[in-house]
Amino acid sequence: MQPTDAVRILGIDPGLQSTGFGVIDKRGSKLSYVASGCIRTNEREALPQRLGVVFDSIREVIAKYAPHEAAIEEVFLNKNPWSTLLLGQARGAAIAAMTTAGLPVAEYGTMQIKKSVVGQGRATKDQVSHMVVRLLTLGGVPQSDAADALACAICHAHTSGLLSASTDGLDRRRAGRVVARTSFRRMQP
Amino acid sequence: MQPTDAVRILGIDPGLQSTGFGVIDKRGSKLSYVASGCIRTNEREALPQRLGVVFDSIREVIAKYAPHEAAIEEVFLNKNPWSTLLLGQARGAAIAAMTTAGLPVAEYGTMQIKKSVVGQGRATKDQVSHMVVRLLTLGGVPQSDAADALACAICHAHTSGLLSASTDGLDRRRAGRVVARTSFRRMQP
Repeated sequence: MQPTDAVRILGIDPGLQSTGFGVIDKRGSKLSYVASGCIRTNEREALPQRLGVVFDSIREVIAKYAPHEAAIEEVFLNKNPWSTLLLGQARGAAIAAMTTAGLPVAEYGTMQIKKSVVGQGRATKDQVSHMVVRLLTLGGVPQSDAADALACAICHAHTSGLLSASTDGLDRRRAGRVVARTSFRRMQP
Repeated sequence: MQPTDAVRILGIDPGLQSTGFGVIDKRGSKLSYVASGCIRTNEREALPQRLGVVFDSIREVIAKYAPHEAAIEEVFLNKNPWSTLLLGQARGAAIAAMTTAGLPVAEYGTMQIKKSVVGQGRATKDQVSHMVVRLLTLGGVPQSDAADALACAICHAHTSGLLSASTDGLDRRRAGRVVARTSFRRMQP
């Protein structure tokens, strides 16, 4: 199903209650929809378990759709610091799931995504999902978190110089703050 | 090396720059030191990569020492919300590493750990590491993050009713907000 010359991108909109995901293919300048959805966790479960669900579910999405690259939305600071902390933990679990699966992960700010998808950084949520539907010629509007994840994937596709186009092992692009899969580890026992 | 009737506990003091770990064995009421150390990430690397290092390194510790249960310190809210967000993401990656390795993970607040190790919740860092050295009869004072991780493991050991003592699949203890390894997953494609 995956065209051999296409770059498959996984977009993630992280959250503890609900994490949106969206998968698209980029072939030249043409984008096409592959899949999207929402990973929900049970509020009545304890935090470690919910983080495990986020991690495992993203791993399932990666196993099923085999993306080449990943993009994740940067989180904004919530007025409630506890909410920021919960969102941060969900985002950490999501990023770990992608990085340790060997995917290069790029981060994009909300305004950057809106500018890339709609053309202006202060676009409304409706404008974003409208353009996601148009750019991917979808038959209907996806769920909010899934639409945001697709928008993040589109932003990555639009960002010049996809990772897989790089010809050396350096791979770090300041633009999208993209990192390679080289591992760095120092443990002091 | 691991006594068959001992419960092996992994304690984690999470952080993006430095994550402390400590492994102890509990045999009846007797505690013994197994290992401790510190996982450091490179500040010059991008966040996704650093989170990958935290995750992979904790998985290495688990593979090497095969703990039965895990305990992690709750994070306090930093005055700087960006620091809180970074710490939250490191904690999320650390918890995901333990939960998805099948370890039940308990969370303990700083005051709860101090009370359990020193006897009073407002103990200083020095008092905590002094008691860690005494309780585990160590030959020297461990590095700060490693000492905090050992203190967290000791707190878990002291907390009545270790997880593995439970006889059913329920396993949820409100005391330490401990969760079992049952998985909950709902995805909406």
